[in-house]
Amino acid sequence: MSSFYGENLKLSIFGQSHGPAIGMTLDGIPAGLSVDFDKLQSFMALRAPGQHSYSTPRKEADVPEFLSGIVDGCTCGSPIAAIIRNTNTRSGDYNNLRDCPRPGHADYTAQVKYGGFQDAAGGGHFSGRLTAPLCIAGGMCKQWLENMGIRIAAHILQIGSVSDLSFNAVKPQIYDIGLNFPVLDDTVAKLMQEEISHVWQAKDSIGGSIECAITGLPAGLGEPMFGGVENRIAQIIYGIPAVKGLWFGDGIRAPEARGSAYNDAYTIHNGQVTTLTNHNGGILGGITNGMPVVFTAAIKPTPSIGQSQQTVNLKTGEITTVEVKGRHDPCIVPRAVPVIEAAAAIAVYDMILGNSSVQKRG
Amino acid sequence: MSSFYGENLKLSIFGQSHGPAIGMTLDGIPAGLSVDFDKLQSFMALRAPGQHSYSTPRKEADVPEFLSGIVDGCTCGSPIAAIIRNTNTRSGDYNNLRDCPRPGHADYTAQVKYGGFQDAAGGGHFSGRLTAPLCIAGGMCKQWLENMGIRIAAHILQIGSVSDLSFNAVKPQIYDIGLNFPVLDDTVAKLMQEEISHVWQAKDSIGGSIECAITGLPAGLGEPMFGGVENRIAQIIYGIPAVKGLWFGDGIRAPEARGSAYNDAYTIHNGQVTTLTNHNGGILGGITNGMPVVFTAAIKPTPSIGQSQQTVNLKTGEITTVEVKGRHDPCIVPRAVPVIEAAAAIAVYDMILGNSSVQKRG
Amino acid sequence: MSSFYGENLKLSIFGQSHGPAIGMTLDGIPAGLSVDFDKLQSFMALRAPGQHSYSTPRKEADVPEFLSGIVDGCTCGSPIAAIIRNTNTRSGDYNNLRDCPRPGHADYTAQVKYGGFQDAAGGGHFSGRLTAPLCIAGGMCKQWLENMGIRIAAHILQIGSVSDLSFNAVKPQIYDIGLNFPVLDDTVAKLMQEEISHVWQAKDSIGGSIECAITGLPAGLGEPMFGGVENRIAQIIYGIPAVKGLWFGDGIRAPEARGSAYNDAYTIHNGQVTTLTNHNGGILGGITNGMPVVFTAAIKPTPSIGQSQQTVNLKTGEITTVEVKGRHDPCIVPRAVPVIEAAAAIAVYDMILGNSSVQKRG
Amino acid sequence: MSSFYGENLKLSIFGQSHGPAIGMTLDGIPAGLSVDFDKLQSFMALRAPGQHSYSTPRKEADVPEFLSGIVDGCTCGSPIAAIIRNTNTRSGDYNNLRDCPRPGHADYTAQVKYGGFQDAAGGGHFSGRLTAPLCIAGGMCKQWLENMGIRIAAHILQIGSVSDLSFNAVKPQIYDIGLNFPVLDDTVAKLMQEEISHVWQAKDSIGGSIECAITGLPAGLGEPMFGGVENRIAQIIYGIPAVKGLWFGDGIRAPEARGSAYNDAYTIHNGQVTTLTNHNGGILGGITNGMPVVFTAAIKPTPSIGQSQQTVNLKTGEITTVEVKGRHDPCIVPRAVPVIEAAAAIAVYDMILGNSSVQKRG
Repeated sequence: MSSFYGENLKLSIFGQSHGPAIGMTLDGIPAGLSVDFDKLQSFMALRAPGQHSYSTPRKEADVPEFLSGIVDGCTCGSPIAAIIRNTNTRSGDYNNLRDCPRPGHADYTAQVKYGGFQDAAGGGHFSGRLTAPLCIAGGMCKQWLENMGIRIAAHILQIGSVSDLSFNAVKPQIYDIGLNFPVLDDTVAKLMQEEISHVWQAKDSIGGSIECAITGLPAGLGEPMFGGVENRIAQIIYGIPAVKGLWFGDGIRAPEARGSAYNDAYTIHNGQVTTLTNHNGGILGGITNGMPVVFTAAIKPTPSIGQSQQTVNLKTGEITTVEVKGRHDPCIVPRAVPVIEAAAAIAVYDMILGNSSVQKRG
Repeated sequence: MSSFYGENLKLSIFGQSHGPAIGMTLDGIPAGLSVDFDKLQSFMALRAPGQHSYSTPRKEADVPEFLSGIVDGCTCGSPIAAIIRNTNTRSGDYNNLRDCPRPGHADYTAQVKYGGFQDAAGGGHFSGRLTAPLCIAGGMCKQWLENMGIRIAAHILQIGSVSDLSFNAVKPQIYDIGLNFPVLDDTVAKLMQEEISHVWQAKDSIGGSIECAITGLPAGLGEPMFGGVENRIAQIIYGIPAVKGLWFGDGIRAPEARGSAYNDAYTIHNGQVTTLTNHNGGILGGITNGMPVVFTAAIKPTPSIGQSQQTVNLKTGEITTVEVKGRHDPCIVPRAVPVIEAAAAIAVYDMILGNSSVQKRG
Repeated sequence: MSSFYGENLKLSIFGQSHGPAIGMTLDGIPAGLSVDFDKLQSFMALRAPGQHSYSTPRKEADVPEFLSGIVDGCTCGSPIAAIIRNTNTRSGDYNNLRDCPRPGHADYTAQVKYGGFQDAAGGGHFSGRLTAPLCIAGGMCKQWLENMGIRIAAHILQIGSVSDLSFNAVKPQIYDIGLNFPVLDDTVAKLMQEEISHVWQAKDSIGGSIECAITGLPAGLGEPMFGGVENRIAQIIYGIPAVKGLWFGDGIRAPEARGSAYNDAYTIHNGQVTTLTNHNGGILGGITNGMPVVFTAAIKPTPSIGQSQQTVNLKTGEITTVEVKGRHDPCIVPRAVPVIEAAAAIAVYDMILGNSSVQKRG
Repeated sequence: MSSFYGENLKLSIFGQSHGPAIGMTLDGIPAGLSVDFDKLQSFMALRAPGQHSYSTPRKEADVPEFLSGIVDGCTCGSPIAAIIRNTNTRSGDYNNLRDCPRPGHADYTAQVKYGGFQDAAGGGHFSGRLTAPLCIAGGMCKQWLENMGIRIAAHILQIGSVSDLSFNAVKPQIYDIGLNFPVLDDTVAKLMQEEISHVWQAKDSIGGSIECAITGLPAGLGEPMFGGVENRIAQIIYGIPAVKGLWFGDGIRAPEARGSAYNDAYTIHNGQVTTLTNHNGGILGGITNGMPVVFTAAIKPTPSIGQSQQTVNLKTGEITTVEVKGRHDPCIVPRAVPVIEAAAAIAVYDMILGNSSVQKRG
């Protein structure tokens, strides 16, 4: 399946960037859960465009309208549906891109797959704009998890040459992520912003990585083999445009590691089995061990850049160039932080729903 | 779900390391496909233990017995089932591990999840031995893909401090992987083997990474969002024990990359649209662009090491130590190469089955 | 899983009877299929209320608004979403029904399942109104099937004591269903309408049955065991409120039949293998044999009746009575005919999508 | 999908009638559930052939061998796999049936679907023999449900002209089904057996129906629309060969019923809400109401009959006749009773697993 996710909950994402509306349906949610709409709106604002001088100036309100599933502020047990109207649709901008695909975008693959019938305007269904409905679903799941004592926090780990501290460098109890710029070490915020400004001035873009931690999870969540915590987080995280890598714990350093150092030794603390380190990112055999689940997603540079790029005119077969017009984010990473949290929240809440012993904690 | 995989084909893996048998069922395969059993056996031999001086000496024949789905060497359209009997089961070795979980293994998480009812012997369902039935299914899918002109080739990219060339450094036409030791650059084979010998003598283990390329894929395979090629490969690759990281193309370098360098410019060659580079690993928007699909899996060091490690006695709550008895692979990476290929083959064949336009090429 | 259907296409239905809107998302549809909106509107009008003197007078426009998935009248490959705003919501009517469940409705079961958080107004998600989005999806699938030469036609087989001819009594070539009242034998139309008027005057309701035929299907569609044509039609047909029975071909008479009479003997006609009779309803071993697929759904009487009925006050535990206010259809069967067709169209189109050899016919 | 079933548990059935073995895998079962193998064997014996003078004399032991998932008589949390070896395979008997399909069997549809590659011997994957692994899975689920106080009981409702009492005619507390012949009213047992003997002497076969009740279910089980109790029972029941009809409660009489009589009025008994009648078969809106879930499956006459039947030679295109050799059950209904129970048990246990509030009762 394509735009569907979930084993116990069922999430469906729909819409094209410049169509009438984008939205989501979310089925399988228990009745009687409250939704804090103000909190949801604040969460969604974190991914909204137009927040920085260099960011795309499209001012989309992104206020979801709930069509079903919520009555008097509580889930009623039937599918939740919410939409966001697209108000700023300028399809004329994109007409020539159907013939001359932009490098790094899905223009060419969509053209091949859909035979020219795809909605090319604004990237259509492939647009990063589709992460807004993901944040509607994920923002609610995040609230419901918090009510169970499960918290999800992501921060920018790297942008270009600038790196933040890793969660492993700080204590889980004090994951203190900056409000204005989501980093653990406030001193790198300015450096990262400078790096972004720099590439922006060069009509270029830059990638980065986001580290996410899920704390408060009980041990025993997840299934062996294809139903493991890694598998299910990976399945949704790779649904976020521009994610090209994903590792759990210190997975990126696993290739040079030795077992004696990589294995997380067990200890006991206040009667609770725990580990001295967390190289495995809280997951062994696909199942949580009670330590924070930690993963990192690698984000490629925004494909839209102001520089001229080589492409092929699909109609004439001639090599030509394309320049991406308009203003685009030179670095999508800051706005992707809540999206990563949203995706993680959906994956975790889905697993929680499949685990009756954990639900009892709720 | 846990030990099931697939949208169009349906793979089920069952068995415990020291139970009567391990096996797989594979449903949804078209009728009339031939299976070359000798070739399958050769493929499975690549992951068999006991091939190297330092490898575990358990000599498992690993000859699958097919129970259904194949008649006169051809698929008959009904589910394929095959099993491998476990002949070398010494469950006595593992009794104390139920109480004192080995660091880095799934002993503790299985104990929490299954409340002590898990089959602890030999790692039970979490054992790397379960990759043998994965290789039965994957070995067949690999053959069927080859008959369509789609080839899957993996090699060791890194073990500890020794690195092989990347596929990006060579031309896709000449993926020439060593037969005795699966590397592109034969000169690193000896260095890697020395690295393994070295950690083995130190009663330690070491991780590594495996790079895999899928060539011959048409453009247009995969679905947007959660059904993308990355998502579906990730879902199965993370089902292989010890995989802790996964990236596509140059995904690991995406965080420091600039768009002007990372975007793969289009060109045209013999009337075929192609790209000058392949940083995106053959996938844009979750959909193949006709370039080789390339991914790398990071493998953690084998958790079983001869050194004494700290653990907790779950019965008494006391901190204690555990030493893993028996001989174990100090580096699982060489044996994991065919497993990665098998998993990739299953994922790709599943996507092919869902794409009627591609099937016509078959 | 609950409000989702499909193996290859993915249908999601959402909304409550008196909420802001009802709707559907439909994913997995190939790009480039045209939709005739006028034809779709005409199809949806067949289930609209307020068509008969005795029918519920709520005049719902039921004009779907398409939010995504269709560009310039053609599918674009991304999920199709459409909604219908609810304009006639009178939630005040239903407040007391939360405490005193109406017999035959889902009031009580929803109360138990959702703990009082369900949207009780108008039956909420259980309302027959939710068949409107089913008709959006099914109406489109029906059009796409017709373009392949596959036709779906349903008629009222029985209402109370009045029965229409069965499809088996006429030749498949001349399925000639009345436009004003969907019966094969026009002479029974008036009798059925009289039966409905009669029970309506008695403040009662009446059930019926609907027979549906799918012609033009190739042999070889469907899968053995749980993926059979019967299984998949049953799974969606039982999603229509009030359906309490379903049989294929002469299934209802199978218990008294003998094999010598029930087996459909093969013959050959214009080089095409066919059967002399169609007792098996076009399906053997779950797979189509090229004859029309014929099934009959039994519809229970509308639970809403003007008579006083015994119920229990769930708050006080006392036995009491309830009278269903407002005007309700005394017989839902005529309006259910397009709904049965819609459900059949969705099931068949889903199977077609999974069968590449059949798609080539399209 | 085809030979897979389940939302929370995952059942896979494999094997061909005359292949090496038939079997099943069952995933998603909690750890720590005991299995009474003697009880399971007794249950499986109820469907074994060769029990009656007129029944097929093939004496298949049908003793399952468990390959995984059960340790020391308890589930261990990993997938359960069990196989039954086929000992009595006489493939020579069936060679000519590939060309001349038997009326009423899946020979022709399999030939079209699998292009001649199907395993034609003994009906291959379409054989009623595949209900043996269904009984392995279902027999275990039945035991686990009984441990929760949920009982499943089926009886022959009709064979030809002879009918048993319906469950609605007796009190749920005293479902007293005959041990030797599964009927409620012992006096009809002899009549049914005579009916079978009669058709057997006429080289014919006869159909029948089986009524099944599930008692002890809590209210609130099941989901609206496509995930209802009816949908999910239908999906598995139609996986049993020869089932051609299915209705819930008094569904077969719904078409002539009036709402005033068909609605089940609520009452209260010992503080428990219940209904005075059970015309709806314990299900409203797809959700259990606490009354017994009652359904009836219509079984067509065994297609194999000794009489000569018209068919077509697919190679030559000529009309010819076929006589089914060997001894076959003239009525499959008695042996299908445990199969219906097994299927119901699997469906119900699957729903129980998805319902955490119900699991707490267990």
